[in-house]
Amino acid sequence: MSYRIVIAPSGFKESLSAAQVAESIAEGVLRVIPDADIDLIPLVDGGEGTAEALALAGGGRLVPCTATGPVGRPVPTHFALLGESGPGPVTAVVEMAAVAGLSLVPAGLRDPGTTTTYGVGELIRAALDLGARRVLVGCGDSGTSDGGAGALQALGARLTDHHGRELAPGGAALGELVRVDTSGLDRRLAATELLVACNPFNVLCGAQGVARVFGPQKGAGPADVEVLSAALERWAAVLTRDLSPRIDLRTAPGTGASGGLGAGLAAVGARLLPRFDVLLDRLDLDARLARADLVITAEGALDHQTVRGKIPAEVASRAHAAGVPVFVLAGTIGPGAHMVRAIGVDAYSAILPAPMSLPEAIEGSREILADATERSLRIVALGTRLAVRAA
Amino acid sequence: MSYRIVIAPSGFKESLSAAQVAESIAEGVLRVIPDADIDLIPLVDGGEGTAEALALAGGGRLVPCTATGPVGRPVPTHFALLGESGPGPVTAVVEMAAVAGLSLVPAGLRDPGTTTTYGVGELIRAALDLGARRVLVGCGDSGTSDGGAGALQALGARLTDHHGRELAPGGAALGELVRVDTSGLDRRLAATELLVACNPFNVLCGAQGVARVFGPQKGAGPADVEVLSAALERWAAVLTRDLSPRIDLRTAPGTGASGGLGAGLAAVGARLLPRFDVLLDRLDLDARLARADLVITAEGALDHQTVRGKIPAEVASRAHAAGVPVFVLAGTIGPGAHMVRAIGVDAYSAILPAPMSLPEAIEGSREILADATERSLRIVALGTRLAVRAA
Repeated sequence: MSYRIVIAPSGFKESLSAAQVAESIAEGVLRVIPDADIDLIPLVDGGEGTAEALALAGGGRLVPCTATGPVGRPVPTHFALLGESGPGPVTAVVEMAAVAGLSLVPAGLRDPGTTTTYGVGELIRAALDLGARRVLVGCGDSGTSDGGAGALQALGARLTDHHGRELAPGGAALGELVRVDTSGLDRRLAATELLVACNPFNVLCGAQGVARVFGPQKGAGPADVEVLSAALERWAAVLTRDLSPRIDLRTAPGTGASGGLGAGLAAVGARLLPRFDVLLDRLDLDARLARADLVITAEGALDHQTVRGKIPAEVASRAHAAGVPVFVLAGTIGPGAHMVRAIGVDAYSAILPAPMSLPEAIEGSREILADATERSLRIVALGTRLAVRAA
Repeated sequence: MSYRIVIAPSGFKESLSAAQVAESIAEGVLRVIPDADIDLIPLVDGGEGTAEALALAGGGRLVPCTATGPVGRPVPTHFALLGESGPGPVTAVVEMAAVAGLSLVPAGLRDPGTTTTYGVGELIRAALDLGARRVLVGCGDSGTSDGGAGALQALGARLTDHHGRELAPGGAALGELVRVDTSGLDRRLAATELLVACNPFNVLCGAQGVARVFGPQKGAGPADVEVLSAALERWAAVLTRDLSPRIDLRTAPGTGASGGLGAGLAAVGARLLPRFDVLLDRLDLDARLARADLVITAEGALDHQTVRGKIPAEVASRAHAAGVPVFVLAGTIGPGAHMVRAIGVDAYSAILPAPMSLPEAIEGSREILADATERSLRIVALGTRLAVRAA
């Protein structure tokens, strides 16, 4: 018989885009099941590749431009524009990773106390200049922890200390914050639907706040983490006092997205939405999953973080709800990977054929992934053979 | 339903014995199928671990001793004695790798032109001293290419040059050989059944001869290979002229086993037997495979050499003949691994969970193998689920 197989993977960070991952998996599947009916659904989570993926999926275009990068130097970047020829509002997709992502922070400058989201605000203004009346900000893969302070400054807000002086860039400076003045805020924002695609597990403050959970991987030492934590508490308090936001900026779901960018944008009226609700709606994912005999998803690293809202977890729980078996391919299997079985993953496999370093694995990733898919599908076929023998 | 699963692996070189591999695989299987009916058949191929495995399987004992190692220094070694209390002849198992194996040759002294099988002859004599009347010599994992010349010298043969002087140890010296005198050969050999368990693909001379095929991995450069090749041609010619062996020492199957040890022993009356016929007979392997629903085998490296008489190839072809599906787990998957599908392997998988070095993989091999088995069996189960859905 022929199988209907949905291939709905994440990209592999620093290696393959989601589309490339999907294509490699499809190649491996077809070596084993040449007549498989394959449905490719490369997925993004708001981080790297989101603007490009949504532009491709939605018939939009990428607008190249230059903006302020996370360490204050200009970087070449882009945003997406969708629906320019349709009847509805023009929608921009601003991917924060494309202008303030961790990969844009040179290794020697990884200090989340000083990196800034200023470029995110610049991209939002550039999108408004081109007529966007709805802006979707994708979070993920950030290199910043400034609570979105830089983005607000770029949009016209003034953040001042007790001398009335503008704060320096970065999260650490928020410890000196006394007042937020939004009288100079870009007036077009009031007529713009500002949406933020967040991982709802990320919150701004407290024990699970961004400084503590993500600060170290962005380059913060233990002392830096405490300074940053306190500064973001002050940021939340002053924003709440001066702007009266509708949500609790300290702990509402998504306030910690991208180093607190979620909180900063929420303070000026943005809605924080669970990222997959925003990103998957237009893909008709549930219906496509329900039609499949088998769903294959993939991630660079499968570990304890996967169940906390990563793409394979989202795909697995939706496919499981539809009663469809789920298989996951992973570049690396780490501690806690087994937890994915509880949310609907039937089986998973690592892709490496032999001992090798991470750079070697990245170098050969397309072929390694196709070969691993082939091997796994032959094991699946072995299982069907066993079932037929037993019947 | 419960499954009957035969686990019949090879050992992983420099890492796990065949018994350890079998136990790790069983652990992984039981995590997925707790009521599996498991039949463990750890397999050896004549090389490292053979004496110990046969002593365990046959109720025999290991005899520790000291003998001449491959570079001429004494090494602690052992052989096995079987059937000491039974009515039949006492059988000794002499594992050449335990006294002349590549792992006994220090890295700086890897020169197959000078290493010797002298210790193999010493072990045979030690076995005869303890009453053995049948000696099985296991080949494989050798560090020598002396055509068994050293073994014959230890058994009492004289190998002389045109001055009538005894040759120096090693294969290269055979280029000076003029005469083989077996008048001093241990007389007990005439009343002893001498059997050699060989890979029949290995032959002494010609384009596929041992010097060319295995010389480089034992440390020979291109020029060394030619010298050694010519010396082994001379060895075959002089042995044939002086001893009138029953087989063609140059090209008969197994003459190239363990650097030509097969040829040397055949010249003094040994029978060269396909290794698996000798080693698997007492295990009742075919009947046990035929009773299984699934056969799992394993090897350290699965590559183009696997189909040339390695353990997974032997297991797969026998299981395939019985119509039983075969799955292979491999530490490393190399070029040409796919050829095993043509001889009955349904599917295979690599075991590594993440990028790592070979030493790291060896260090964690037991757990890595059990985890990989678990992952693979869950993929098998996914396949059976697909088949059930389709029915």
